[in-house]
Parts: sequence; structure tokens; C-alpha cells
Amino acid sequence: MRLCAWPGNETLAAKLRAALGASELPLETRRFPDGESYVRIAGDCGGEIAIVCSLDHPDEKTVPLLVLADTVRAEGATRVGLIAPYLAYLRQDRQFKPGEAVSSRTFAKILSAHFDWLVTVDPHLHRYNSLDEIYSLKSRVCHAAPAIAAWIKVNIEKPLLIGPDSESAQWVGDIAARINAPSITLEKTRRGDREVEVSVPHIEKWQNHTPVLADDIISTGKTMLAAAKRLRDEHAKTPVCIGVHAIFAGPAYAELINVGARVVTCNAITHPSNGIDLTEVIAAGVRLIPVERP
Amino acid sequence: MRLCAWPGNETLAAKLRAALGASELPLETRRFPDGESYVRIAGDCGGEIAIVCSLDHPDEKTVPLLVLADTVRAEGATRVGLIAPYLAYLRQDRQFKPGEAVSSRTFAKILSAHFDWLVTVDPHLHRYNSLDEIYSLKSRVCHAAPAIAAWIKVNIEKPLLIGPDSESAQWVGDIAARINAPSITLEKTRRGDREVEVSVPHIEKWQNHTPVLADDIISTGKTMLAAAKRLRDEHAKTPVCIGVHAIFAGPAYAELINVGARVVTCNAITHPSNGIDLTEVIAAGVRLIPVERP
Repeated sequence: MRLCAWPGNETLAAKLRAALGASELPLETRRFPDGESYVRIAGDCGGEIAIVCSLDHPDEKTVPLLVLADTVRAEGATRVGLIAPYLAYLRQDRQFKPGEAVSSRTFAKILSAHFDWLVTVDPHLHRYNSLDEIYSLKSRVCHAAPAIAAWIKVNIEKPLLIGPDSESAQWVGDIAARINAPSITLEKTRRGDREVEVSVPHIEKWQNHTPVLADDIISTGKTMLAAAKRLRDEHAKTPVCIGVHAIFAGPAYAELINVGARVVTCNAITHPSNGIDLTEVIAAGVRLIPVERP
Repeated sequence: MRLCAWPGNETLAAKLRAALGASELPLETRRFPDGESYVRIAGDCGGEIAIVCSLDHPDEKTVPLLVLADTVRAEGATRVGLIAPYLAYLRQDRQFKPGEAVSSRTFAKILSAHFDWLVTVDPHLHRYNSLDEIYSLKSRVCHAAPAIAAWIKVNIEKPLLIGPDSESAQWVGDIAARINAPSITLEKTRRGDREVEVSVPHIEKWQNHTPVLADDIISTGKTMLAAAKRLRDEHAKTPVCIGVHAIFAGPAYAELINVGARVVTCNAITHPSNGIDLTEVIAAGVRLIPVERP
């Protein structure tokens, strides 16, 4: 297998190459003055090719990524896979208002038309039970929970796992169970349209523990920020904030740091806070994609 | 027919609606924190729908545009057309170096999979004779030359048409012939890697004329800028710079203005320099797309 790193994914791609015994397929990209992308592969494309590209900010990346997939295929690849640790376009899984795009279906159709397989980490599936409902390519979902649990076990003494909402309770509970740690769920109260007030139930019971807030995606970070502030005010220990997907839109990261939180994310999306390595988790997923030799 | 304006194309779309007797299909778009697009149409999608979206900076626009096309179709459109006065991804029409993407084919395949027809203006076809070589949808190419010629006739006294290179000579000659004006072609001398020196042959013969530089795309604007400077230094009259597609990457527009040039472009790409209206040219192209009622 040869791995090609989309710009911004070089570090994870290098680790995946080492884990999978894959070789490197060098890539050259740039933009023409009108904004269209130039794509060139500088290496042999025979055999199985995997492109490593996390799909945060998917609109900018998708067209040149499809161009790249077509190019490696034209240059001789037997199959073309996509390793997208973060997969976008899953939230609009039905119409919430009349006339809304169910964009998840279009995006799945586009990727499925150009790639043979897809490996991703903890996709934000709500009303779909599986990617197979919308993706016609082979897909494999990897889970960050074991890597997060292992990191907490090594790095945090007496952790108290805290999930941001009932939706995440099972996921956070699973991480906690792997390391015999307690876990609780935040209580949210909406104040008006945009303000969210959170409380940490029975936090006084856990004064000897280090609070560990964990969520799959940190996007605006507002809930995590509100929780971190509350913990700073009510608890002796600075909270640790863990996320699988480090979106950090706007000032989210700086604000969390300013509150005094220790922020640690998985390397699904490249970010200065990356501290939990998903290489083995993702490599295991790639190994499970059955390779059909033509 | 209903016309839906992609953000940035509202002015041209309103003129096209008036010219075509079409109604408006309102559109709502925004971006989620991870950069994925939200798309919603706020109106009846029955019948023939055309989306107006010039495809400069195509990477950001294409995915949500495909999402929109799928949405109007799901909401009942009988056919979905794309009016893209500027069409990107035509320059890479073959491999110039090993491993290069022939991105024009991928882009044509993507658009053809989601739209029934396409109307565009003066696409940058080099080695393709027709869009039909790569697009499997119905397409209609419109020409800006009649609109440019009509504008020059009304606005410029004694014009001397000047084409930037031999490739554009026929196109510029056609504009000139429509208004019985003389036309010449710049001579370029490359100085090193990035510098281009231009000369205007026999410019002394045309001291009573107003020089009119015309090109299909003004992208970096370097050739036009070099020519405008040369004309400012050697000629009594300030040059007029005309372009069909106002890309103006980087400081191109400001630099041309600073030289004292009058810059006028067609409204294929929305830009402050737009002064030549293509509404009738494009509307005529749309009318030629045969409408098949289901």
C-alpha cells in the first residue's frame, strides 16, 4: 500500500505509513489565480493507494481530493481509499425545516463515486445507524475511546470523566469503564437563545478527583468552556478537556486555555492540542478493509 | 423557469430573471463551525430550475452547489441547470508533466453528475474543441464579443483594439471587425523567469486612437499591466482595459488603476469594474437550451 498525505495531514500519514508498512506517494498541490487547484502526484501509483485527508473544512478540500483520486486511478492504482479521520457532512441527515438540503446524502454520493473505501474515526452519526445507509463504498469506522482511555490512565491521577450531555453519556461512560473511573453528565440550562448555563451535579463528592471533560467534537467549544469555568469556580483542580475532533471554531481554543483548562485532543484533525495518538486505532481499521487484488 | 442566485451572483441573476421572465427561487446558505455548508431553498421547486453561480474560486463553491442541485431535484425540479458565466477547471486539459491531474475531466464529471445543462461564457478551451468532449450534460457556450463591441462603439471614440498575444488575436480582431476598428497584437519578450516585457508595434501610427486592451480572462493582470505602462509612457491617451472574466488575483486591479488605466469588465464574475452587461448574451444561451417537459 502507498499513502498519500493531503497537505496538513503529513504527520499522521507518516505514522500510518510506519504502522502499515506502507510507502509514501508524494503529492504536489497549489492554486491557480482563479482559485482552482493544481494536483500532481510524484511517484508510482501501482497497487492500493490510500489518501490521508481529514475532512474538516470539506468544501475547500473535496474537489481537489476527487481530482487526486481520479488521477491516481488513471496512473494505475488498483484501488483508491480515503483515510478521513474526521468526516464532515453527517449532521444534515434529514430535513429539519422545509427546503433544507440533506447534504449528507450528496456528500456520500460524491465520495462514493471516486473512492473504493473509507476509514474514519467516530463519525457523528445521529439518525443513521451506519455509513452504509448513505455511502456505497466500503467503510470502516474506528473508535477513539480505547486510545483516550489509555491516555487518561497514564496521564491523569484519579480522573472523574464528565460528559457534556446525555447524548455523550454512553460514550463517556465507556471510556470511564475501561479505566475503572467514575463518570457523570453535565446538566444544561438554556438561558435565552445562545447562552448555555451548565452545572456539574454533586461535584462536591469528587473533590479529590481531576475532572476530565470529554466530547467527540469540540467545535465552538461553548459547552466545554462553560463547564470548565464552572469547575474552576467550584472545584480545586483545573479541568482537563479532551476531544476526538479538534475543530475549535473561532476563539474556542484560546478561551479554554485562558480558563486554565488543559486541552488535549486526538490527532484526527491536526491541531496544536493533539496529544492522543490514533495511529494504531486507524491502522487497525485500514487493515480490516479487505484488499481485493484485481 | 425559476432562477436561484448563488451568493455573490444576485445582481446578474435578477437581470437574467427579468430577461427570461423567470421567477426567483430564494436560497439560504451558511457555514457550520467545521466549515461544512448549510443549504436551504425557500420556495417552490417545481418545473425547470437554473442556478446562477460563476465558478471562480470553484473549490469553495462546488460541494454546496452540488448539494443545492440535489436538493432542488429532490424538492420536485423537473430539470436543474447551471448558469456559470465563468467556468473553471479547463486549463489542465492534458498532462504537461508526468503525474499531473487532468482536472478538467474530473470537474466535468462532477458537474455532469448533478446538473442537466450548463450555460457559460467564453470558456478557456485550448485543446478541447467543445465542452462536449468532457461534459456529458447539455451545454451552451455564449460569446461576450458582441456585448464588448457594442460597449466600445458607444463609449470609446476612435478605438484601437489591442490583443495581449497571438492566441487572442482572432478574438480581438473579431471585436474590432464588428465596429470597423483597427486591431493589433502585443509583442512579448520574456525577461528571466517571471518578468514579461511587452511592446506595442507601430504604436506611433495610432496617436489619434484610444488604445483598448482586451482579454478573455484578467487573472494576475501582469501582461495587461505591462502593456498599460508601456502605453502610458509612449502614447498620448490613457488605455482602456477590457476583460470578460474579472479574476484579478492579488493586487492586479489596484495596479491597473494606479497606472491610470480605465478598467471595464463584463459581469460574468461580480467585480467593481463590471461595466459591460452580458444579460442578453447569457439569456439568449439559456433560451437555446431545449426544454423537455417530462
